[in-house]
Amino acid sequence: MSRSISLAVIPGDGIGPEVVAQGLKVLSAVLPQDVKLETEEYDLGAKRWHATGETLPDAEMERIRQHDAILLGAIGDPSVPSGTLERGLLLKLRFAFDHFVNLRPSKLFPNTTSPLAGDPDIDFVVVREGTEGPYVGNGGSIRKGTPQEVANEVSVNTAFGVERVVRDAFARAQARPRKKLTLVHKNNVLVYAGHLWKDTFDRVGQEFPEVSTDYLHVDAATIFLVTDPARFDVIVTDNLFGDIITDLAAAVSGGIGLAASGNINPSRAFPSMFEPVHGSAPDIAGTGKADPTATVLSAALLLRHLGYEAEAERVDAAVTADLAERSGAVRTTDEIGDALAVRVAS
Amino acid sequence: MSRSISLAVIPGDGIGPEVVAQGLKVLSAVLPQDVKLETEEYDLGAKRWHATGETLPDAEMERIRQHDAILLGAIGDPSVPSGTLERGLLLKLRFAFDHFVNLRPSKLFPNTTSPLAGDPDIDFVVVREGTEGPYVGNGGSIRKGTPQEVANEVSVNTAFGVERVVRDAFARAQARPRKKLTLVHKNNVLVYAGHLWKDTFDRVGQEFPEVSTDYLHVDAATIFLVTDPARFDVIVTDNLFGDIITDLAAAVSGGIGLAASGNINPSRAFPSMFEPVHGSAPDIAGTGKADPTATVLSAALLLRHLGYEAEAERVDAAVTADLAERSGAVRTTDEIGDALAVRVAS
Ligand SMILES: CC(C)[C@H](C(=O)O)[C@@H](O)C(=O)O
Ligand SMILES: CC(C)[C@H](C(=O)O)[C@@H](O)C(=O)O
Repeated sequence: MSRSISLAVIPGDGIGPEVVAQGLKVLSAVLPQDVKLETEEYDLGAKRWHATGETLPDAEMERIRQHDAILLGAIGDPSVPSGTLERGLLLKLRFAFDHFVNLRPSKLFPNTTSPLAGDPDIDFVVVREGTEGPYVGNGGSIRKGTPQEVANEVSVNTAFGVERVVRDAFARAQARPRKKLTLVHKNNVLVYAGHLWKDTFDRVGQEFPEVSTDYLHVDAATIFLVTDPARFDVIVTDNLFGDIITDLAAAVSGGIGLAASGNINPSRAFPSMFEPVHGSAPDIAGTGKADPTATVLSAALLLRHLGYEAEAERVDAAVTADLAERSGAVRTTDEIGDALAVRVAS
Repeated sequence: MSRSISLAVIPGDGIGPEVVAQGLKVLSAVLPQDVKLETEEYDLGAKRWHATGETLPDAEMERIRQHDAILLGAIGDPSVPSGTLERGLLLKLRFAFDHFVNLRPSKLFPNTTSPLAGDPDIDFVVVREGTEGPYVGNGGSIRKGTPQEVANEVSVNTAFGVERVVRDAFARAQARPRKKLTLVHKNNVLVYAGHLWKDTFDRVGQEFPEVSTDYLHVDAATIFLVTDPARFDVIVTDNLFGDIITDLAAAVSGGIGLAASGNINPSRAFPSMFEPVHGSAPDIAGTGKADPTATVLSAALLLRHLGYEAEAERVDAAVTADLAERSGAVRTTDEIGDALAVRVAS
């Protein structure tokens, strides 16, 4: 394990910088004295785009590539045309660094309220494919702006791309106590992509006889996510379905203020990127209302990815304890970060 | 208004025949004496496919085309390869009869329990596009079954197709007290289709100045469906997103036992098709456990579509009263149908 971590930090827009500051605070506090945390900030996002028209110049991407990992706050602002920063920055990073595992754990922490009635038992993780599907950008339109316009979007799915993420998900399921993996797709309508996913799932599953498997159409999966979330342990799904069900999963497990995510290339050939699931929330930027917990939990995923398992567990435990002992008092972004930093250090 | 209704009835698989029987029972009871209800049953679905290999022969489709409307129970059985009946029967009907408006109301009826905590206020309708998007079947795969397989799915969106459904949704929003329409898409990633939808939405919206509008990405929409469903009045969205969010909508508003749906061609050039959102539930077929309410509510949509507004309202009112006065006793499929038939007749 390297005794230094070189981190590319992309604070981004809105509440991004505020929550990233807390993530870094906790990282510094949890790492052993002899591990040097080197950070370099990259000024990317809406402000940069307004000032220069740039989203992510190649030279900057090459510099980011040299780091061990990326910590990202949030990207996006209503003043920027929809799609510009998503395609030009966020998805560009995910695709360039081959982040084929988008890892999104869902857990109902103590004292957090789910919009679901009762006391649902939620502890699952979604393995979302990150480099294929309708996210590839293989679309186009003809006769734009006329009554004869046709706009297409192509979902591209390869055996290579599907197999590696399915295999990753099986390995993660195998390592968990329940050892259960659910494939979510829509193979009764998207028959070509669906069959590739299902066939691959069935074939790779033979290598993991201890893992029990299940298949759900994406529409049915949304039903179970609100009526019986306890049925899920690990879910593997494509890029678009993963986008949709992880927001729903975050909502039922206490809100996107707590939802962490990692865009991972398990080979470590490229820097993986860790970011909260939530957006830039420009309406509350600067008010101290943003909950940095999702970013702190994303930092824990980052630590785990780089091999700092014990430290990752301390961060997770600190969040759990912090939420369990949270008094009724409303705390600022900074206060939550401070409290978590104190906990992980002790 | 015609004083006879010619109905194509497709009971289908699993619980389909049981629930359709109750739908017909209620239809007969609610229609004025002088309106003749003529029904013709079509034996389509899993059993037929197993016996003959046929899903929907052209000659049969031509006969169905002659009817005023179609009442469908449920299609599908695990013994049939996924996609066979969906593409060969259900979607074939929707596409052949140009059912571009897939209407799916969500309402939390009295005495029904939502999985959501509190007492959520749910009364909205989803207008789902029914003839385009990734449902068109324009996909394919190469090198199938090899490590070099590539499987694509194409989402096709036309100005013609998007505009007509958006216009229909605006008109429906205009006719409701709250007059609010939300477009759900993912235009930050699916930029070509997304821009066509958003531009069309903005343009058509100018013709409906009284309707207030809103846009949500599909992932964010799933969050609001569980945290604040009261924010929705009318939602318009594409075929796939509509499939996903209407199952979620059904789940939060008391379950798919109550979710009705209409596959509508507003011009009446083709027979529109009414069906519960739920599937064939083979596990409970024949047990009398199936709730026919969704089919009865679908029959109300059918009545409304054919111009029998007063009768449609009587069916809706009967369901509301039935649920409000429902005792704790568990009733069979037949008993619920009988109770509703008695109510609408009186
Ligand atoms: C911002 C957007 C491009 C992104 C996605 O769709 O992947 C976001 O919704 C997410 O889930 O990380
Ligand atoms: C059975 C399937 C083809 C169908 C769909 O995806 O439209 C169903 O889920 C629905 O919502 O009516």
